[in-house]
Amino acid sequence: MSTDVKHIPEAVLRAEVQRFLTGAGARAEDAEQTTRALLHASRIGVDSHGVRLCRYYADLLQAGVMNARPTRVMRRTGPAAGVLDGDDGLAHGASYQAMDEAVDMAATCGIGAVGVVHSTHFGAAGAYAVEAAHRGMIGLVTTNSLSLVSLFGGGIAFHGTNPIAMAAPVPDSRPWLLDMATSSIPFNRVQLYRSLGLSLPEGTAVDAQGHPTTDPARASFLQPLGGPEFGFKGAALAGVVTILSAILPGATLDPDILPDAQARQRREPANIGHFFIAIDPARFVGRTGYDAAITRYLEVLRASPAVDPKRPVMAPGDREWAEAEKRARLGIPVDPDTLKALGL
Amino acid sequence: MSTDVKHIPEAVLRAEVQRFLTGAGARAEDAEQTTRALLHASRIGVDSHGVRLCRYYADLLQAGVMNARPTRVMRRTGPAAGVLDGDDGLAHGASYQAMDEAVDMAATCGIGAVGVVHSTHFGAAGAYAVEAAHRGMIGLVTTNSLSLVSLFGGGIAFHGTNPIAMAAPVPDSRPWLLDMATSSIPFNRVQLYRSLGLSLPEGTAVDAQGHPTTDPARASFLQPLGGPEFGFKGAALAGVVTILSAILPGATLDPDILPDAQARQRREPANIGHFFIAIDPARFVGRTGYDAAITRYLEVLRASPAVDPKRPVMAPGDREWAEAEKRARLGIPVDPDTLKALGL
Repeated sequence: MSTDVKHIPEAVLRAEVQRFLTGAGARAEDAEQTTRALLHASRIGVDSHGVRLCRYYADLLQAGVMNARPTRVMRRTGPAAGVLDGDDGLAHGASYQAMDEAVDMAATCGIGAVGVVHSTHFGAAGAYAVEAAHRGMIGLVTTNSLSLVSLFGGGIAFHGTNPIAMAAPVPDSRPWLLDMATSSIPFNRVQLYRSLGLSLPEGTAVDAQGHPTTDPARASFLQPLGGPEFGFKGAALAGVVTILSAILPGATLDPDILPDAQARQRREPANIGHFFIAIDPARFVGRTGYDAAITRYLEVLRASPAVDPKRPVMAPGDREWAEAEKRARLGIPVDPDTLKALGL
Repeated sequence: MSTDVKHIPEAVLRAEVQRFLTGAGARAEDAEQTTRALLHASRIGVDSHGVRLCRYYADLLQAGVMNARPTRVMRRTGPAAGVLDGDDGLAHGASYQAMDEAVDMAATCGIGAVGVVHSTHFGAAGAYAVEAAHRGMIGLVTTNSLSLVSLFGGGIAFHGTNPIAMAAPVPDSRPWLLDMATSSIPFNRVQLYRSLGLSLPEGTAVDAQGHPTTDPARASFLQPLGGPEFGFKGAALAGVVTILSAILPGATLDPDILPDAQARQRREPANIGHFFIAIDPARFVGRTGYDAAITRYLEVLRASPAVDPKRPVMAPGDREWAEAEKRARLGIPVDPDTLKALGL
């Protein structure tokens, strides 16, 4: 991070981001949920999906691409299923609501699933998975997104970076937490490396003709996880995400989502889709058995020998929760452009 | 394949594998379900999980590690949840039953999930995912397995190759079908390359100290999908599988599963776990909307330009279903050891 980064206490940042979003036209309750999701990412060190996104959302609100006064409609379609229409508003409140409904269904049925349609960019998928874990459930979250990743052997961008997030509750501890794109790297790494003059890792990006490149200036889209040899796996996982998040609830397919510039010009909402699953461990092995097993799993995993003893093995989320503790003490680092927008 | 491979018509092979398994002590109805799962894999060209496994299962039955007279018990724990105890028998009948129960739950609730405990090696995960698709549902299947894959930066084998399978129904067509290990390659590729004297791809295997190697003779376990740079993603996906398949239903954790030799010595069953989810598209976007969207998705995907025009892009399953058509005409290739065991 540059020296122009300032560390801001979370409470201050929350108030400022919320104020900024309402200033851009969002309702107070929507701004609150968006801020909550952005702070999840900023707190655990995922700055690409943190408070810096508030400017992006404000732009879309002001350009009329997002609906500042959405009427969300939740339709229960079965004891354990539902579809929530986000009415093209900020996606975060809709996403928290969808996961909350899925958790309610899981409490009654053992598992529950809610698809969201007519939605927009929801930030970090893990924000919603964690909410299920806070209520004692395993949470699974997917979203589709704008084409940025090639198929295996594909010459154009097809799928989005289509993340998969899962959180699992751990007794007396932060949840086990996975939140990963199905590409090897996110596109903003390409942009960052361009400005830093660094080479990209092998097998992560391709040029405009689909040929592998490590030069960020020539990189025009990404390769799926697994790269030139095993990228059929990453591409298939991206497909899992598209099927669950877009096809199943009825949202737009990744290659049909308009790039932001075109969406702005046409003032046309994206109709991005998300999918939320909650699973209640109490309905499977039972709460006691689950708590004992996940505890033992993490103990055995963290005690497992590393190739390099200076770099011990970690469970998904360990690095992020450690960062959250650090940031709780030192504040959240905010980049200059976002500081300026927030008047900090 | 060597020249000693023979092509056997599916009907002949089915009868012989079933006879072989009952000869090893399996009940007729269990042998039938095992044969059904093995033929799924053999039919679509996944020979590692095809009929050759009948010898492995017969060995475990005869060594008393598997229960030849299991009493399976299905416990409904909620409207959309259940746990099936496989009583240490052949896993295939239990797995078909679990998916069938999950599909019934999904028909009522929108989604359903069944965990299986006290199970054994179930063959190809895709065999059961496909069954959900044949009943109009999206099917998701996971299983944990014996430690063979390192953690990210890990010095020992920790997770199994922990596959993820998903099938999605496609109108007037074979299902979209993914069935992938969360390692880059399966361990039997290491064994195959040893005998062929070939080098392994970079980033797929490690030696006994956990250091990367491309020499199959030195390879003692596998790296997670993503390799030395992005293997934290593959390792996390293996963790997703362990949490769903082992921790949630109450099965043995991957690192605690006894290697076959020890299991034989102690006559101790493995208590492997599986997890089955079925989702009914009719409860989300609706059948008509789903059918139109999955059809369009696959049309757009298959028409998407390839880097190399001679190698068009494919959807997961395309290669496998094409192989199935070929094998329906030419018969299923069977290796010499299996031919001998089956008396063919």
